[in-house]
Formats: sequence, C-alpha cells, structure tokens
Amino acid sequence: MLGLEGKSVFQSPRGWVPIYADAEQTLAVMSIGFLLKNRDDPVIWRGPKKTAMIKLFLEDVYWDNLDYLIIDTPPGTSDEHISVMENIRSLPVLGAVLVTTPQAVAVGDVRREVTFCRKTGIRILGIIENMSGFVCPTCAECTNIFSKGGGEALAIHAKVPFLGCIPIDPQLTQALESGVSFIDSFEGSNVTETFKNIAAQITSS
Amino acid sequence: MLGLEGKSVFQSPRGWVPIYADAEQTLAVMSIGFLLKNRDDPVIWRGPKKTAMIKLFLEDVYWDNLDYLIIDTPPGTSDEHISVMENIRSLPVLGAVLVTTPQAVAVGDVRREVTFCRKTGIRILGIIENMSGFVCPTCAECTNIFSKGGGEALAIHAKVPFLGCIPIDPQLTQALESGVSFIDSFEGSNVTETFKNIAAQITSS
Repeated sequence: MLGLEGKSVFQSPRGWVPIYADAEQTLAVMSIGFLLKNRDDPVIWRGPKKTAMIKLFLEDVYWDNLDYLIIDTPPGTSDEHISVMENIRSLPVLGAVLVTTPQAVAVGDVRREVTFCRKTGIRILGIIENMSGFVCPTCAECTNIFSKGGGEALAIHAKVPFLGCIPIDPQLTQALESGVSFIDSFEGSNVTETFKNIAAQITSS
Repeated sequence: MLGLEGKSVFQSPRGWVPIYADAEQTLAVMSIGFLLKNRDDPVIWRGPKKTAMIKLFLEDVYWDNLDYLIIDTPPGTSDEHISVMENIRSLPVLGAVLVTTPQAVAVGDVRREVTFCRKTGIRILGIIENMSGFVCPTCAECTNIFSKGGGEALAIHAKVPFLGCIPIDPQLTQALESGVSFIDSFEGSNVTETFKNIAAQITSS
C-alpha cells in the first residue's frame, strides 16, 4: 500500500534502518516483508518467534526521533496483541484505535478487542468503521454493501469515541494498489476530509 | 453467519456434541464461540493454547459420520495452520481451498499460503476470488471495487485450478447477517449458481 514491496532493510551500528515511504523521510516503515528473500516465502512461525520479532522491531530498529509510532496488528487478541501490549506497557502509550467493518461478525471481533484493551489497561482512542457503504461511480447511489452502523453502535455500547466512517471508494483502493498517496491525489474529496478528521481526533486525544 | 450465536455445546460420554445448523442435522458446527460464557469475552490465547483447542476440536468432538470436515482458518501461515496441518497429516485429506480478495495485499498473503501448502505437502484444490466486483442494485453497473483478476492471475501463476469469482452482493451480506440460507432464498441467482459451481468442482476433486 505504501509502494515499498521488494525493498530490503540493512543493519547499521545503531540497529536496523527502517525504509522511508516518502522523500521527506517523515514516514519510517518496518515490516517483516523487508526481511524475506523472496516475496512468495511464507512466514511459518509459531507465537514465540513472532514475539521475538515484535521485540526486535521495537528495540533493535533505529527509529530515531518519532512523533508517533503506529503498530498495525492483525485482527483478534492473540500472540501479536499480547506481545505488543507487554512490550509497550511501561511506555507512555497514547492508546488503541480499533477498526471494524460494519458486519456483525467483524463487530463481534472488535467487541472482544474492547474487552482485551480494558483488561490490559490500554486506553481506547476510538472506533473507526471501514468499508462503510459504497457510492456507485455511475449513478452516485450509496449502497450499504454490508450492514450499516455496526461500528458506531459498538462505540456507544463501549462508551468510547466513534471516530468516523470510511466508505468504499474505488479510487481509494486503486491508490492503495499502486502505492500512491490518496490524500495528495484527491485533495478536498469527502474521503480525504474523513481521513483528516479522524487523524485530528486521534492526535488531539 | 449460521445464526448460531449464543448456542452452547455440552459434553456427552462420546465427546463434545457439536451444534447443528439445520433441522435435518446435515451441518454440524463447532466453534470456540460456543465455549465462551459471555459474547464479549476475548480469547486471549498464545499459540500453545490454540494448538490444544484445535486438537480437542478434531479429537474430542463427537462428529459422528461425516462426508466432509471443513476447517476454516484465519489468513496467514501461523500457529493455527501449522497445528491443523500437523493434526490432519496422517489422514486422507482432500486438500486446501484458498480464498483471496482481488487486492494486491490480499493476493500476497495467499501467494505465501500457496508456498505453505507446497512445503507441507497439502494439495491445493483451487483458489476462489471473493468480493470480486459489485453490481449496483440501482443502476446494475458492475464496479470493481478493488482491482480485478488477482485471484485468477495467482491461480495461473501457481498452476492450480481457479474455482470462481464471488461478487459482492448486498443480498448475500444481508443473508449472512441474519443467519439465513442465501442459496435457499435466492435460488437461480447468479451468485447461487457460482456457489454451486464451486462446490461441484471441489467435491469432484
């Protein structure tokens, strides 16, 4: 999505050097993908190896000075989440942003993540509903492909902020496919405004 | 999706009794969801506990006589996949059905799953492309919400059968939300025919 496939990282005396996604070097990225020899290689790892890699990403990468460190986890409440939580526990963590899609099965997963955050003392910054409706580019009619409002209902139920809805936009998915910045390409569009609005809410939390 | 939320299983002398999704008792289901006291409870488990549960589901559930046992795994190639593979290794396994969505990031995951199956000797029955285009219910124009053809291209690349494309159909997602059988409700629809066609290819493999 950031156009970084095929890049590889190297080790400096200060640690692994992350890959910068932009020319201005404002977005440093680290991914297990950068460590694979071949893009078809599966990462056939049980939990302990994943835990060790998460520790390495946090401790042995030369992140330099960061304003924000964003950790993107898979869905669920398993090894990755437990390991991240254990490693960041002693740091001043801003909190967790939970992303759901509107369907009941997805909301169910995120509902359990809310309980996970509560149990482990991670503050929930809010919930985002992704893939929230589709605006037909031909007739401009908005269809709720999945059901609608599951994210907002969960936010109310859990008494946490609802940060916004991101609709399905074929232009957004195309930008992600080609590794192009959507916000730069579609300035002023509704979806860009939604992203900016969500970011503003998070950074002012 | 099967309308079984809130059901709980009990233990008989022959083992855990699965939940039947239909009155004719043709579809027996076992899920960790049935073992939770509260639907908000997260399953905060590292790999070894998940591995033990997979073994229990295979060995300690009274499945009775089955024509097919379908194991639905999360994406990736981690604990769940390794454990399932180790437990079914000695059995006459038909093979794996890989499901992708059309975007490059999803196809990348499934490409690594192809390598996983090759390395572990699991036959690949084929690849399905899910969320493959959206037919607007207002104007009937088909939009490729994500890119198109990723699943078929991967099947060709991996030299495995391409089983078909399942489009996004709001009627399908509504059926899944309410736990209603889509195939029974929309007999003769294109999507129903696609499901039947895919099932026929798998059962004749």
